[in-house]
This record gives sequence, C-alpha cells and structure tokens, in this order.
Amino acid sequence: MPRPIITLTTDYGSSDHFVGVMKGVILSINPEVNIVDLTHNVLAHDILDGALAIGQSYRYFPPKTVHVVVVDPGVGTARRPILVAGDQHYFVAPDNGVLSSVYEQSESLHVWDIISEHYFRQPVSKTFHGRDIFAPVAAWLTKSWQTSSFGEPITDFVRFGIPKAKRTGNTVQGTVLHADHFGNLITNITAADLPELAAGEGKLTISVGNGQVTKVVETFAQGAAGEVVGLMGSSGYLELSVNKGNASRTLGAGRGAEISVEIKAGK
Amino acid sequence: MPRPIITLTTDYGSSDHFVGVMKGVILSINPEVNIVDLTHNVLAHDILDGALAIGQSYRYFPPKTVHVVVVDPGVGTARRPILVAGDQHYFVAPDNGVLSSVYEQSESLHVWDIISEHYFRQPVSKTFHGRDIFAPVAAWLTKSWQTSSFGEPITDFVRFGIPKAKRTGNTVQGTVLHADHFGNLITNITAADLPELAAGEGKLTISVGNGQVTKVVETFAQGAAGEVVGLMGSSGYLELSVNKGNASRTLGAGRGAEISVEIKAGK
Amino acid sequence: MPRPIITLTTDYGSSDHFVGVMKGVILSINPEVNIVDLTHNVLAHDILDGALAIGQSYRYFPPKTVHVVVVDPGVGTARRPILVAGDQHYFVAPDNGVLSSVYEQSESLHVWDIISEHYFRQPVSKTFHGRDIFAPVAAWLTKSWQTSSFGEPITDFVRFGIPKAKRTGNTVQGTVLHADHFGNLITNITAADLPELAAGEGKLTISVGNGQVTKVVETFAQGAAGEVVGLMGSSGYLELSVNKGNASRTLGAGRGAEISVEIKAGK
Repeated sequence: MPRPIITLTTDYGSSDHFVGVMKGVILSINPEVNIVDLTHNVLAHDILDGALAIGQSYRYFPPKTVHVVVVDPGVGTARRPILVAGDQHYFVAPDNGVLSSVYEQSESLHVWDIISEHYFRQPVSKTFHGRDIFAPVAAWLTKSWQTSSFGEPITDFVRFGIPKAKRTGNTVQGTVLHADHFGNLITNITAADLPELAAGEGKLTISVGNGQVTKVVETFAQGAAGEVVGLMGSSGYLELSVNKGNASRTLGAGRGAEISVEIKAGK
Repeated sequence: MPRPIITLTTDYGSSDHFVGVMKGVILSINPEVNIVDLTHNVLAHDILDGALAIGQSYRYFPPKTVHVVVVDPGVGTARRPILVAGDQHYFVAPDNGVLSSVYEQSESLHVWDIISEHYFRQPVSKTFHGRDIFAPVAAWLTKSWQTSSFGEPITDFVRFGIPKAKRTGNTVQGTVLHADHFGNLITNITAADLPELAAGEGKLTISVGNGQVTKVVETFAQGAAGEVVGLMGSSGYLELSVNKGNASRTLGAGRGAEISVEIKAGK
Repeated sequence: MPRPIITLTTDYGSSDHFVGVMKGVILSINPEVNIVDLTHNVLAHDILDGALAIGQSYRYFPPKTVHVVVVDPGVGTARRPILVAGDQHYFVAPDNGVLSSVYEQSESLHVWDIISEHYFRQPVSKTFHGRDIFAPVAAWLTKSWQTSSFGEPITDFVRFGIPKAKRTGNTVQGTVLHADHFGNLITNITAADLPELAAGEGKLTISVGNGQVTKVVETFAQGAAGEVVGLMGSSGYLELSVNKGNASRTLGAGRGAEISVEIKAGK
C-alpha cells in the first residue's frame, strides 16, 4: 500500500518556522505520510489566489490525496474549519471560500464542519490553526479515512465564483488572475470564450495595461525579443508572455488588471 | 518501523545547490531517511535567528528526530562540530550557540564533540561542513543511533542566553526577536512577563518603532484596517500585527527593535 | 529495496503551482518515488546557470538517481526531449545544453531522443513539458528502468563548453559563474589553473568588478570585517567572499563579470 499523501498550500512563505512545524505535527501523528509542498507563496491573505493555486493543482495528484489549504485571514474568528471530499480528493481548509475552484470542478461534494476537538492539538491557539487544527486533522484522516468522525455535514459552506470572462459580440472582457514567476500574465479567458484563438482564425487585438498585443503564437519562443505575445497556456487560459522576458513588467500590469480582446473576421 | 526523520535548518537560502547537495549526501548514506526542510531562510550568519528557528520548532516533531542546524559563520575555524541529545531529540550543529534555545528547553542534555572523522565526507572542505560533516553525521546516526561513537562528551559547549524581557514595576522592556513573513513583529515578552495581557486586565501602551499601540486583541482579524494591534502569539510571545497588513512596515521596526510596555490599572 | 529518487532542478521559482503539479504527476505514476528538490531558482531561461546547478550536485546522490532538469526557453519548439544515462545517474531534460556539465563529467554516455509518446501526459501542452513530458518520463523510468523503450539513441545532442579560465604566463583570466545566496562570487578558476593558491605560494592580485583583492585565506571567518578575500571554495573554484558580508555587493560584480589574477613569485 502506498504511503498517504498530504499536500500543503499556504500563504506562510518560507522564511519562518510555520511550515516546518505543520510537518512536524503531521509526522508526529502519522510518520508514514508523504508530505508534498504545493506552494507557500500564495499572496498573503489572498483567498482568490489560494483558490486558484489549489484549483489548478489538485487533479494532478493521485485519488485519495489530502490537500491542506491555509489562506486564513479570519483565523480564530467564527469562520469554521472544514473537511471536504470531492472529485476523489480530500481537502482540509478554513471555510472562507478558498476551495471555491475545487467546488466548481467537483461533481459530487461532501463538506463537514470540523467540530471533533479531540483531533486538535491542545491548547488551540487563536492565530495558528494550520498547526493546531488543519495539520492534525489531515494527519488523523490518513489513519482512519473516516470523514464523518470529524464533524457534521453542512451545505451552507462559503463559496464565491471565480471571475469569468464575458463575451459580447466580438469583444471579450476578462481579468488577469495571476502573474507567474516568469512574468507571464494568466488571464481568465478560456478557449470556449475565444475559439478564434485555438483555431488560429480571426485577428485579435488584446488590450491590457499600457499595451496592445496582436501577435498570437503557440509557445513562448515564437515571440521576438521584447515582444508581448498571446498564447493558450498550459492551464487552458489565454496568457500574455514575452520570450525570455517579463510580460508583467513590459505591460505594467499584474493580478487584477482588466483585459479586453477585440476579434476581427479573417486571418 | 517508521522511517527516520532528519530536519534541516540553515541560512543557505534556496537559490543554490547547497541544500540539495546535503540531501544527496544523506540519502547516499541512508536512503530510508525522510528529509524535512524546516527553513533555509535563517538570516545569513545570524546565530540567534537560527537558535530561535530551531527552538520554536523541534518539539513538534516525533521523538528521535535528528535536527541538523547549520548557521555557521565560523565554518573551518577552531569551532567544534557537536552532536546533542536532549529532550528526546538529536541535534547536529556547529558549537557556536545556535542550539542555545534547545539547551534552555532540555532537562537532561548530552553533548559530544564530533571527532570521529571516518563519519565525514572526505576530503573535508574548509567552507561547507553542512555537506562534509553535519549531513553525513546525521545520516550515520540514523543507522546506528550510537551517539557515543561520534566523539567525546563535553560540557563546555557554547551557549548564550536568549534575550529576556525585563519587568520593573508597571513597565516591561523587551525586544523584537523576529519579523515574520506577514510583517508581524514577534517580541520576547511572554505571558509571564505581562499577565495583564492574557487576563485582559489593565490598559497597555506598547511603544515600538515609530508607533504606540494600545489595542489588544485575541487574533489578527479583530484589528481594524491599517491599525496595529497587540496579541499573544502562537509561540507564547507578545506580537504586534496589522489585520491583512504589515506591522513591521507600518511601525518601521524589525528584528532587534526595542519595545516598551506601560501598564495602567483598570480596564 | 530503497525507494527510487527523482530530483528536480528548474527555473520555475516557488510561487506558482508548476513544481507542485510535477510532483503530483510523478506520484500518480509511481507513488513510491522520493522526490527531492535540488533548486527551483535557476536564473530564468539561463541554460548555463542550470547546467552548473545540476553539474555541481548530481554526484552527491546515490547511483541510479533520476535527475529532472527543466530550464527550457524553447519549450514546444523543435528542440528534443532527451533521456541520458551517464556516470551511473539518469537525466531527463530538454536537449538544449542544460546537461553540458554532466556530459563533461561522464566517461560513458548514452543519450536517447524521447519519442515514445505513450509515456507522455495527454494532451501535451506547448508550454509545460515539465508536467507533460519530463515528469512522467522520469516517473515511468523508475518503474521499468528500460531506457531504450523511451526513444532512439542519438549522438548529436546539444552541448556547449562550460567557460574555462585561461592562464597566460603569470596571468589567469576567468569569469564569475555564479553569485550565491551569501553574495560569494564563484569563479571558473580551478586549483589546476592557479596552483599557487592551494600551495599558499606567490602573491596574488585578483581584479574583479570595482575592486582588487590580495588577501587569500582558507575559510570565510579569516577575513576581516568588510574585507574581500579569495579562497578555494567547496566546489573546487576560486571564490571571492566577505566575512559575514556580501562580496557581490561590495565589488559591484555578479554572474558573468570578468576576473583577472596576477601572480608574483615569492610569498
């Protein structure tokens, strides 16, 4: 039997003891767990950024993986800790919408309010539930797989809509969801919003930040030096990119920037 | 039998091959080891920062965990490499005080000067004992658990006192030990130094950097936007924090800043 | 039998889902793999920097380790994905020279163009071969160890020479290969280029950036505060360093800077 996998997605950064301590708590409960860092650089307190990070990643892991997601500006307040089973995966997180993208992708969904305090580290601090609630609950789950023992089923969990692009005639209005490590701007415009992109049909004018982009390519290296190009990215969204450069810097645009695409007929 | 755990705490950062090479050395000696990164972002050459990082983390790991701690500005000089058994954990580190917080927390303590060079990688470089001494000694320890075979017991190991806060009447003088990833300032003022904080009694005026803080809360989200608040943090120290903000930036204060708390009777 | 090891070396950074997704893909194929991060902070698109990172690290891992190296500005273009067996290790990478240092160190070398698409994740994106080709090929390799099933042997793989220092009489001309986390400048000048350094013979004048360095020591702490010193580093190259300081900042020099050493007879 393979070792159980717990992934960690947080906004804790990597310069403190927070992540290490969570790993210690998990291994103290179940030393057989294989702990995998997804990222600890979710933008601080940014629930949408966290929702996108886990939403774009979890499906690549084997079924039965437990994903701990901690972007938790409301730690220690009335917001609930939840355990979610959906799409053959498990999730442990605060009930603040950080699993919204997971909810969108899951056909059947079971959510529990975690109230069984004997699974918590005691005493539970008011400010570090990653250590005292989320990590231990995930670790105990990998020992029993009895989701119902952790709390009570709920249906009123918090969810928000991931912002969608909107097409009106030959104009698509969208937004930049994320600027990645290379400065590529990942938008929320999909192939369904903009079939002309995938088909290589139509002339596109993409306006974002201080620039207008008209060249559409298939991969980064097809852009000329310094030139911003559009392409269909690996997560299925329109991206803006500069070959060996940084589109975010070139365009003066980042997360949250508005983007508009005009389509003209013909090639 | 669970796999042995070795944790790594260093100031090596994550942009070089240093940490990866240490992992290779460990796995070459004992491929069964579960290597866990605590943090590699201890402030460069800052022994106190390293002492705090390991001191706040090691107890969350299972007994018999081996903690490698390398903050080692004196690498290659007369300072000794040491192996420590204390508080049911093991530590491998330079003898420069980086384990001082561990010593404070351990009731019984055994320290060995590591002199058995056949456990070292040869040739031993003058500048990378993480690779040539600390990593291999930790890995060999997980194979034999024979601490005494690594060297000779010593009692004159280097230790310094973690700076303590001082209370005089109704004034507590302390210092900022650490600014975390979120900009929270972690001070060295404990509940014992300032029982009024935990009891919610007394009116506190906290002076640090360019600000005065009078609001005391239980968790981050109880602060208003932009407002600096004080709270008892998850490691048992008074912290200064801004809800979804950065207290270090707001106060213009970081590691080493002085902090003073005045207590007035009444609520 | 110990678990197979796959190491990851990329320029993906740590703020996105890229690395986590690769780990998910690997564990979905072979949950027994021990995944080890070498570094994800290779300079973006910098093939030489990636070549040095893997070249200085792989030998510390056990034989039969699989090293995935992704610095891949040409992803999705005609450049081939390759599988390499050399020096008792395996490598999976784009055929762009990023394994050049590995080639230099390997006596016998076998290279395959990876063409067996049934080992790829489908559909293969044009921009994320780390997820769709390199990670799955590495994972499948750890299940079968049948290198020849992945493609066809080639001999015309891409390689470039790691820049070498050049000695003319009593002058050595070199270059800075890397500035590390501490600001140490690692040059390409070896003990063979400059035997006077190791022997402690001769008077050296090292010119780099805006400074001239004449003090040669054995380890960092032998330098005075603020003083730049030269020393033979742990990877066998001349390094420039400041005790508890940052030589890169002091000298105003980084990767690619030219360095010149003049040797005078006598001590």
